Amino acid sequence: MLDLKTRVDIAAGRQPADLVLRNGKIVNVLSCEIHEGDVAIAGEYIVGIGAYEGREVVDLKGQYVCPGFIDGHVHIESSMLSVPEFAKVVAAHGTTAVITDPHEIANVMGSEGIRFMLNSSKYCPIDVYVMVSSCVPASHFESAGANLSAEDIEPLLGDPWVLGLAEMMNFPGVVGGDPGCLHKLAVAGKRPIDGHCPGLAGKDLCAYAATGIGSDHECTSADEAREKLRMGLCIMIREGSQARNLEALLPLVTTETLDRFMFVTDDKDVDDLLEQGQIDHMIRKAVAMGMNPLHAIKLSTINTARYFGLHHLGAIAPGRAASIAVVNNLTDCRVTRTYRAGELVAENGVGYDAGADKRREQILRSSINVQWLEPQQFAIPTDARESCQVHVIEVTEGRIDTGHAVETMTPANGELHADPARDLAKIAVIERHQASGNTGLGFVRGFGLTDGAIASSVGHDSHNLVVAGTNDADMYTAAVHLVKIRGGFCAVRGGEVLADVPLPIGGLMSTVDAETLSGQLRALHEAVRPVAGKLRRPFMALAFLSLSVIGKLKLTDQGLIDVEKFERIDLVAR
Amino acid sequence: MLDLKTRVDIAAGRQPADLVLRNGKIVNVLSCEIHEGDVAIAGEYIVGIGAYEGREVVDLKGQYVCPGFIDGHVHIESSMLSVPEFAKVVAAHGTTAVITDPHEIANVMGSEGIRFMLNSSKYCPIDVYVMVSSCVPASHFESAGANLSAEDIEPLLGDPWVLGLAEMMNFPGVVGGDPGCLHKLAVAGKRPIDGHCPGLAGKDLCAYAATGIGSDHECTSADEAREKLRMGLCIMIREGSQARNLEALLPLVTTETLDRFMFVTDDKDVDDLLEQGQIDHMIRKAVAMGMNPLHAIKLSTINTARYFGLHHLGAIAPGRAASIAVVNNLTDCRVTRTYRAGELVAENGVGYDAGADKRREQILRSSINVQWLEPQQFAIPTDARESCQVHVIEVTEGRIDTGHAVETMTPANGELHADPARDLAKIAVIERHQASGNTGLGFVRGFGLTDGAIASSVGHDSHNLVVAGTNDADMYTAAVHLVKIRGGFCAVRGGEVLADVPLPIGGLMSTVDAETLSGQLRALHEAVRPVAGKLRRPFMALAFLSLSVIGKLKLTDQGLIDVEKFERIDLVAR
Repeated sequence: MLDLKTRVDIAAGRQPADLVLRNGKIVNVLSCEIHEGDVAIAGEYIVGIGAYEGREVVDLKGQYVCPGFIDGHVHIESSMLSVPEFAKVVAAHGTTAVITDPHEIANVMGSEGIRFMLNSSKYCPIDVYVMVSSCVPASHFESAGANLSAEDIEPLLGDPWVLGLAEMMNFPGVVGGDPGCLHKLAVAGKRPIDGHCPGLAGKDLCAYAATGIGSDHECTSADEAREKLRMGLCIMIREGSQARNLEALLPLVTTETLDRFMFVTDDKDVDDLLEQGQIDHMIRKAVAMGMNPLHAIKLSTINTARYFGLHHLGAIAPGRAASIAVVNNLTDCRVTRTYRAGELVAENGVGYDAGADKRREQILRSSINVQWLEPQQFAIPTDARESCQVHVIEVTEGRIDTGHAVETMTPANGELHADPARDLAKIAVIERHQASGNTGLGFVRGFGLTDGAIASSVGHDSHNLVVAGTNDADMYTAAVHLVKIRGGFCAVRGGEVLADVPLPIGGLMSTVDAETLSGQLRALHEAVRPVAGKLRRPFMALAFLSLSVIGKLKLTDQGLIDVEKFERIDLVAR
Repeated sequence: MLDLKTRVDIAAGRQPADLVLRNGKIVNVLSCEIHEGDVAIAGEYIVGIGAYEGREVVDLKGQYVCPGFIDGHVHIESSMLSVPEFAKVVAAHGTTAVITDPHEIANVMGSEGIRFMLNSSKYCPIDVYVMVSSCVPASHFESAGANLSAEDIEPLLGDPWVLGLAEMMNFPGVVGGDPGCLHKLAVAGKRPIDGHCPGLAGKDLCAYAATGIGSDHECTSADEAREKLRMGLCIMIREGSQARNLEALLPLVTTETLDRFMFVTDDKDVDDLLEQGQIDHMIRKAVAMGMNPLHAIKLSTINTARYFGLHHLGAIAPGRAASIAVVNNLTDCRVTRTYRAGELVAENGVGYDAGADKRREQILRSSINVQWLEPQQFAIPTDARESCQVHVIEVTEGRIDTGHAVETMTPANGELHADPARDLAKIAVIERHQASGNTGLGFVRGFGLTDGAIASSVGHDSHNLVVAGTNDADMYTAAVHLVKIRGGFCAVRGGEVLADVPLPIGGLMSTVDAETLSGQLRALHEAVRPVAGKLRRPFMALAFLSLSVIGKLKLTDQGLIDVEKFERIDLVAR
């Protein structure tokens, strides 16, 4: 890091700059104009705009110099990439900073998981700031690996890369004055606190905002966002792999209200990141929808920096970090060069593993702690002698909520079995944190599973093992295989593993690079297609089968949960 | 302070609010609209917008509910009022928070003066935040009462009401890389640092901004402000007693760049505060010039709050402080009620001395430490026997810079004397901090002083005693009288004190209320008019006679300073 004296000397022209970006058009999000000028960089900082000489001079040939993009709310785990690999991918798309909520790994590993993400973020191609996960576990109907209370959150808030408290999903708790929720908000103090309050309105919204929560990223309509804007919440417009709200919310963004919005991805998997990009994708989409490119870039840079109090980021100006996305033009918004704090971290779509030499290995315990598995734990014994009525979960492509059906099933040998002919697969959710042996069993329709089993250690939000299958033997084999590979996805047929994707980091993230992971996922999907061809992304559906805060019917390690009634129910309807 | 639980309960409608403002039009600076709704207040906070019941309900009958106004840069000493009296006056004009740079008292009393201002700000009708004075003394050509280095500044930055480092006036020092200046900037770290850089441009401006300085309030033209805006500085538009830049700068403010501007007064005396108001005056003036009232109010509230990181201030929304200015309409912008953190602090132009019961007396040493005065120290002996050429300061109404004339003077009895017939008064500047006896002597034209003497302990920026007179006896009497009243202003003729205004707080501020002080000043001006009728505000001119950083010719306790050459010169030209 250069000292202030050297920066001043370079800015004043008494010394050559370390790097000069010449012949670029500067996208100035502060004066809201595009103008010409060399950008002079000294060490980690931009120090001058004007005519400068440098030890290194890069001719940008008329390309646009944008502040590096900032993703204001992202769960890195959803990419299934390790932090450095994620950073490489998004750096290639012009992102130089993300604000992440390590909610998934926190559900598995608690504070240790959050600290692991913080440590993994050191010496990466981008800045990774953390908001401490506020709602672990997400629900008391599932057994998570941790329970983060205010006492756990407070010490994490002292880390210099921690900005505040992540999305407060327990909005009924906040509005109802639940002491645990309020205690978490209180320890966050004046730090940024993100919200998550789908559909909240009126006095309940006031109560939520009155606690100091400053944002929401769950708006799905302009009307919903308009009321939240009025009540003082900043609106994070989200465009992820599942939830996409840009089209609904963009009409609300005017020149007058521009500063209250920002772009976020929330959850985006490796394939979508590779194919579409990240925040750059949102800029392209917004501009294609008619948004002023300068405005779209403000929502991707300065607005986010300001909301999080990152005053050194988000603009091309003397004194700001030299974190820069060079793009070919403002319509295509194709990133040709990314600089993070003065260092070239990506070029022409390729992210560099900047900082790898300084990175130290992070040790993380294997997270798959199941009670020793037995084939018979997948059996569903019943004392019904005749046919009976059974609650069945219904999954639909691309939706994380489910349907709730009741089907007639006939026992055989004192057990209920899967019935592939009627697309009824058996499912099991096996607790994998405390090795308690807790296993929830049920049936699901929609996978089109004809033979074998598929299994996942990604199972929102508690991330227990989720297995769907046509027979107990393959389900057992699939579950055991997940344990052997320390988590991930796999498909089994006839006792043989057809394909797998190891996700050994918390059972959530891979250790390989993005392209390799993408190839593994492609191979897995190809292997699964012959036996479960109904869904394009069967493992995504599997991963949301246990999310007991989103309806209608879910299965956790504690059993079937009727989310609408918010209660456990028996598998066999009386 | 109510706990979070109670606030949530009130917001959710489970308990009545402490106070409800009903039938108002809410000036919403976040969603940039004016809408209806009750404002529900719980303790110090706004908790709800909607339909609420309250223990106290105030019917606003269609008036406008604005966030309390914030003055982003003000030297309270310039009002000549104590902090609580200043607070009462500005609260009556809708101001609920100011960010003050105690630069004047810091020049007199150093850290002790700054701490006195911080302590005086407790339990006032408004929030008083402090930026630590960065340039004490302002110049090495005058003897100030203190010398604040980075080591003095650092401990002050730890106070919860201190926000950052005040205007860095030594811009040549910053641009030149002066270690003392850079050290001060370094200790401020990521805190807000205000700028002060009249006319700075190009690479020098880059160097200045590269240090992290974030604002400037010295722009006098739109072109100057445009370049600073582009280089990332926030522009404080100033409208004080002396400097008024609103007309020049307002054309630069567009909807796109709105968020980079704020309103400040810098220096405004008690009479102007009483007659015109403060930030409300700027809103009226801006609106009269055609500015959208909502925009003018943003520059007076949320923009300033955001620049200083005061996220609980600046907007009417749940979770924000209940600091509110109720105005009759958005054109007149007459403040009818001011609430600060839920408490009514002013009504119909009258500020309440809110907090007086909790206030503890602040002890401050008398600041007038002169070496025992003698009449003969005002004599200007000369060995010239014939007439000689003498450097003369020329003052002009309403300007703080001066002219530099050379006049022929003829000694009598081995001394140079004032020559009222030619409007040449004698002036003396007497060091009053260390009792060193340092006395600078010279001549001034422009007061139209016909008889007697006038004297001031306000003498920018070192605030030594400044005395102008037609004869040494009256000058001596005037100086002695200032010592007796522990500082202030006085006028003397024929050995008799015609009038005085005691300013015993640091020789800068009064202990009486605004109306009494205004009456004292009126009486003083009336007493002075027969002997010095040329200037409307002769004491203002007197107070700037020693400011050795603004040209052309000034007199300090160290002698005559040719500011253009930046050197001391002899009184008699060779």
